[in-house]
Amino acid sequence: MKIAVFAGDGIGPEVTHEAVRVLQALDLPGLELVEGDVGGAAWRKHGHPLPEATLEIARAADAILFGAVGDFECDHLERHLRPEQAILGLRKALGLFANLRPARVFPGLEDHSALRPEVAGAIDLLIVRELNGDVYFGEKGIRTLDNGERQGWDMMAYAESEVRRIAHVGFKAARGRKGRLCSVDKANVLETSQVWRDVMIEVAAEYPDVELSHMYVDNAAMQLVKSPGQFDVVVTGNLFGDILSDQASMCVGSIGLLASASMAEGTKGLYEPIHGSAPDIAGQGKANPMATILSAAMLLRHSFGREAEAARIEAAVAAALADGVFGGDLGGTYGTTAIGDAVLGRL
Amino acid sequence: MKIAVFAGDGIGPEVTHEAVRVLQALDLPGLELVEGDVGGAAWRKHGHPLPEATLEIARAADAILFGAVGDFECDHLERHLRPEQAILGLRKALGLFANLRPARVFPGLEDHSALRPEVAGAIDLLIVRELNGDVYFGEKGIRTLDNGERQGWDMMAYAESEVRRIAHVGFKAARGRKGRLCSVDKANVLETSQVWRDVMIEVAAEYPDVELSHMYVDNAAMQLVKSPGQFDVVVTGNLFGDILSDQASMCVGSIGLLASASMAEGTKGLYEPIHGSAPDIAGQGKANPMATILSAAMLLRHSFGREAEAARIEAAVAAALADGVFGGDLGGTYGTTAIGDAVLGRL
Ligand SMILES: CC(C)[C@H](C(=O)O)[C@@H](O)C(=O)O
Ligand SMILES: CC(C)[C@H](C(=O)O)[C@@H](O)C(=O)O
Repeated sequence: MKIAVFAGDGIGPEVTHEAVRVLQALDLPGLELVEGDVGGAAWRKHGHPLPEATLEIARAADAILFGAVGDFECDHLERHLRPEQAILGLRKALGLFANLRPARVFPGLEDHSALRPEVAGAIDLLIVRELNGDVYFGEKGIRTLDNGERQGWDMMAYAESEVRRIAHVGFKAARGRKGRLCSVDKANVLETSQVWRDVMIEVAAEYPDVELSHMYVDNAAMQLVKSPGQFDVVVTGNLFGDILSDQASMCVGSIGLLASASMAEGTKGLYEPIHGSAPDIAGQGKANPMATILSAAMLLRHSFGREAEAARIEAAVAAALADGVFGGDLGGTYGTTAIGDAVLGRL
Repeated sequence: MKIAVFAGDGIGPEVTHEAVRVLQALDLPGLELVEGDVGGAAWRKHGHPLPEATLEIARAADAILFGAVGDFECDHLERHLRPEQAILGLRKALGLFANLRPARVFPGLEDHSALRPEVAGAIDLLIVRELNGDVYFGEKGIRTLDNGERQGWDMMAYAESEVRRIAHVGFKAARGRKGRLCSVDKANVLETSQVWRDVMIEVAAEYPDVELSHMYVDNAAMQLVKSPGQFDVVVTGNLFGDILSDQASMCVGSIGLLASASMAEGTKGLYEPIHGSAPDIAGQGKANPMATILSAAMLLRHSFGREAEAARIEAAVAAALADGVFGGDLGGTYGTTAIGDAVLGRL
């Protein structure tokens, strides 16, 4: 059980520390933790947000626990040196093509959402976002047109095989849940989406037990506000998934509690809280580590098949929340270590 | 005052009829209305969703009042024959590059939103969406790769001049409101966004009275849920604007009340409700025409500078709502004609 721990910037180290304590408390056989530098922290030390040494650790690991990256002092750097390149680089280098973002309201926390409690309380969805293609990784650049002006351009594209592999992830996930998969695209405008939709329909034939539907991305953004409870599994491309998964998270209300997994073919995955590096509260022991602790649970489940331990962690977090162990993000007074202790005490 | 009236499909004709009655009741000097076929209705009659004759009427008009397009029976057609091509075609042919989508909750209707009333009630924003460029109108296609698989591709791009003209629309709109402009992009990933952001910063120098901020599109989708009241004017590209403007509309709750304008350089514009053709209730006299009536108000304001008449229409609609004149979309019993009558009676 070789786990790379990349704490990153801002509150990353604090929250990762608590998740590591939880992992260590489980007495997992052969647990080996290897730390590596990423993001602004890595750039300060090594001049690059994703140094070769870090990549090596990532390649050698079975799974990666990731904190957060993002650092205001790097804002002036050229794009390839900015902290977020660490996460984009890891996704591509390790073939982490499937981002899984469950969004669900913990019982009793319905009133932390900007949505009405009855709307928020009904949320129980999983967004499956493709993470290795689309306009993120196509050719791009800035060219000078004949008339002398600059034009920025980015190629959006999906090939059938790229859509097919994420489709299977979506259908399998739906099969393990309520059996409904909603594919989100913009097929009325984009050829990329036309291929996407064609392949979704083709793959659906292999999953007669799953009900496939299609929705345009603009409508999906509306429906996620109007009645997010209607969704089971949503599968979509990299760009639409970036937008919709963040929207869905905010619908839940407590983004300090949401975890994510980014999976490669097989069981290798990177696990991270969906929140950012929150530089404003970094180093103050105020950050809520629950999302990172829940990411560690996803890690045990998806990379090591340790469902029992994953469920134990999730139950411990739920119990702490039920007992009113709230971080500042939920209007409570518990600090990072206190929340870690509270979860550990309930394991 | 030459106004083209394109009623379109589904409930389009019904709601447009009421808006026309309102326009006629104002005794506008030289008012001339010319009807044209668009969408599925045009395809049935002429084999094309945007026949040349319709385009001619649009070109000759000072402004266009548009109902809605969309027709299930056209779903099997090739993309260039589908109803939505009428609206895309008009945008491009007439150079309608600036989409203005105000989103505001009518007093007393705060509880029609899925957002908490205090969150929804604070919404008073304007989305300025670029409408002639981006991945919508770039080169696109489906090609066969060397390995034999199909790949869909769409070119996303913005040139400086395209960004500059929409930037001016955004800054001017902000100047006429609360003086805050939020530019939404994905500059951490897209070169298109980098040029977008560069130009926004450049143009900002001409508007020292407007406060410019930047936000990534994923964060914008979150903030529109968390606290939409924080926004004044949002300016963004065609694709992000498609998603965010629909999201913002749904935050308001009553999409049967929201109007939009799509402006060319100068005063020519196309005005339409943001709702669709709602084929399920078409022809039953159930549709709420208020959004189309409010679109007619925008038409008078933006294409003819008739602020007084625009304000009269808006006040009449607000008065009708205050008196409980609710369509089915708001849980009321008023039908299309009854709502038209109610607004006319309060003009
Ligand atoms: C940091 C950024 C490049 C990244 C993305 O757009 O994918 C982030 O928003 C995410 O969703 O993980
Ligand atoms: C119908 C469709 C092509 C159109 C768009 O994507 O622009 C619509 O969603 C809109 O926003 O007017």
